[in-house]
Amino acid sequence: MTNFIYSIPTKIYFGKGQISHLGEAVGAYGHRALLVYGGGSIKKMGLYSTVIDLLKKSSIEVTELSGVEPNPKIESVRKGVKLCRENQIDVVLAVGGGSSIDCAKVVAAGACYDGDAWDLVIHPGKIKNVLPVISVLTLAATGSEMDAFAVISDMEKNDKFGTASEGMKPKASILDPEYTYTVSKHQTAAGTADIMSHTFENYFTNVKGAFIQARFGESLLKTCIKYGKIAVEDPTNYEARSNLMWASSLAINGLLPNGAEVAWSVHPMEHELSAFYDITHGIGLAILTPNWMKHVLNEKTVGQFAEYGVNVWGIDPTLDQFEIANQSIQNTRNYFNALGIPSTLREVGIGEEKLEIMAKKAASMGLEHAFVPLSADDVLAIYKASL
Amino acid sequence: MTNFIYSIPTKIYFGKGQISHLGEAVGAYGHRALLVYGGGSIKKMGLYSTVIDLLKKSSIEVTELSGVEPNPKIESVRKGVKLCRENQIDVVLAVGGGSSIDCAKVVAAGACYDGDAWDLVIHPGKIKNVLPVISVLTLAATGSEMDAFAVISDMEKNDKFGTASEGMKPKASILDPEYTYTVSKHQTAAGTADIMSHTFENYFTNVKGAFIQARFGESLLKTCIKYGKIAVEDPTNYEARSNLMWASSLAINGLLPNGAEVAWSVHPMEHELSAFYDITHGIGLAILTPNWMKHVLNEKTVGQFAEYGVNVWGIDPTLDQFEIANQSIQNTRNYFNALGIPSTLREVGIGEEKLEIMAKKAASMGLEHAFVPLSADDVLAIYKASL
Repeated sequence: MTNFIYSIPTKIYFGKGQISHLGEAVGAYGHRALLVYGGGSIKKMGLYSTVIDLLKKSSIEVTELSGVEPNPKIESVRKGVKLCRENQIDVVLAVGGGSSIDCAKVVAAGACYDGDAWDLVIHPGKIKNVLPVISVLTLAATGSEMDAFAVISDMEKNDKFGTASEGMKPKASILDPEYTYTVSKHQTAAGTADIMSHTFENYFTNVKGAFIQARFGESLLKTCIKYGKIAVEDPTNYEARSNLMWASSLAINGLLPNGAEVAWSVHPMEHELSAFYDITHGIGLAILTPNWMKHVLNEKTVGQFAEYGVNVWGIDPTLDQFEIANQSIQNTRNYFNALGIPSTLREVGIGEEKLEIMAKKAASMGLEHAFVPLSADDVLAIYKASL
Repeated sequence: MTNFIYSIPTKIYFGKGQISHLGEAVGAYGHRALLVYGGGSIKKMGLYSTVIDLLKKSSIEVTELSGVEPNPKIESVRKGVKLCRENQIDVVLAVGGGSSIDCAKVVAAGACYDGDAWDLVIHPGKIKNVLPVISVLTLAATGSEMDAFAVISDMEKNDKFGTASEGMKPKASILDPEYTYTVSKHQTAAGTADIMSHTFENYFTNVKGAFIQARFGESLLKTCIKYGKIAVEDPTNYEARSNLMWASSLAINGLLPNGAEVAWSVHPMEHELSAFYDITHGIGLAILTPNWMKHVLNEKTVGQFAEYGVNVWGIDPTLDQFEIANQSIQNTRNYFNALGIPSTLREVGIGEEKLEIMAKKAASMGLEHAFVPLSADDVLAIYKASL
């Protein structure tokens, strides 16, 4: 186990009806809020009017930044920063999924930064002060509701970068699983794949002796495997929605990587797919993951894949290690398929054209420090195997 | 899964040499610290002088409350409160195990309370303000380093009560596994049993559908089972000490009970043993636990004990449920024995004399809301089975 600092100041209000705490959660940080949300699904489900009513009751003035895109764009961030300045915003409230929360975080940082917000995306170290961020979550996926990270895209440059800062950790997040009842099968599947990918990125590590972290990782994988399928088939199943929602936060709030840290592999590769083709992040992850696993399976890593197979999939431990490993990788693919996720990049409109340039960009994102170091050629091979 | 609020503001500095953060951790809250510690083992291991040097370097004035007992007594708390008032203490720093931290917490609350500190032990609601508490942990056991609880005894009245307050959660805790290298076999075993008991208290719950919490519980039990024995046999094994230390915090910081909450069973029963006989808490827990399990095993609970047996002990799931359950209970007893913990109360000097009065007191501590509700007669039966 390596040294770590664990600090998650986010107060989580979890469960049905916890929106009743919204006024106190936001009001603790000021009385002028920027409300950040996406395409209007929160209006359809009635959450928007609930939020507005509750904020009004707590005498909180609301300015709105709506229309935040999936894979949120820097233009939305810039718009939000401008609104913060014009309206002396005290606190930024995201209502939505990871995209709205990520956007809100960088808006909150940008509002305290004298320059263009894109600087803060490419140079996280420039983030000094951040307005308080609060979130109301409507999609179990990114874990942005309880972490320091945000991913922002500049589609003009086909750039998609992650940034992070202690100050961007939400001060409070309201997690009501019922808000995810209306999430489509497609987004439910993608969200589940995203949670599983966060877990894989931490679970496959070179750090020895981080036993708790590994068992916690397996716990979250088992949770996703059990409940992702139930949620896709039975969208208003509270048990499934609540376990997935809590898993989304726990997969990325530090419990898994602290003491076992390694650079991520599949996320950097997927970010290029989204940056060039604007596909759904979780779908890209699910397509790449089994091919990444096959690519990095070798004499040195087989023990860890076998452990994954035995502890997560219940594969007979007396089988040959490579047999267990390969079976566990096939199970992973089969599971994503069972969620309705395609197996190939072509199915989501990605052809050979840009694979090389994407591979080069991905390889420059720290992949030399990954579980198994990956060069541009490795990434290209994984992309090609995923076609 | 039931609704919950999760909020652990404690910043954890985990790993070798993290004591280097002491100055910043304490200094963030003031420059007059009360240093709370026990019988002097921190002097023997050199930690005391390190702490004093680091505080001096950060220009922090130190007042000392030493000699805090295992099962900390209200007299020590009162002494600490007086020292806080006389020296205008800003921040209370505990260096030690759960006893020193628990004492520090109630001292910190008592310093802000206009009355006798015992009021705060029996009426947690009276705790309003609390001085900031920081801890440096030297024993993996109670989890006090990352929770809101403190247990204080009044031996004159044979009273041992737990109290709790949000404000008592440590602001920061330094967890260096090397500080536990000198913990005796006996205390290592007792600490491991304490962590396992915290996990059992949460794992055996009537709340349905808290899947993540159950899998996390099993993860911590497997951690204790694997590493408790290693730490007893090979005290300077960093992997064992680090996993046990992190398990001690995670078993009680809210991850397990949030969403799955139930009143505890074995702790209230053990508190009476310590209150009347001043025995080591973890040893009392280990003696009682298998007998409690046997007592509450029935048609309704057998499924949960079987799940425990299969998921934690790897017992063949095709066996009869009661067979799995009984085998898992026997494994639990055998494991405690393997740590060198006795199986009976007589071995720690407890006879029949006070069982009835202790059973009545224990039963009044909310045991009617436990996993399986326990009356005074039930408790008496469990005590007698433990003789």
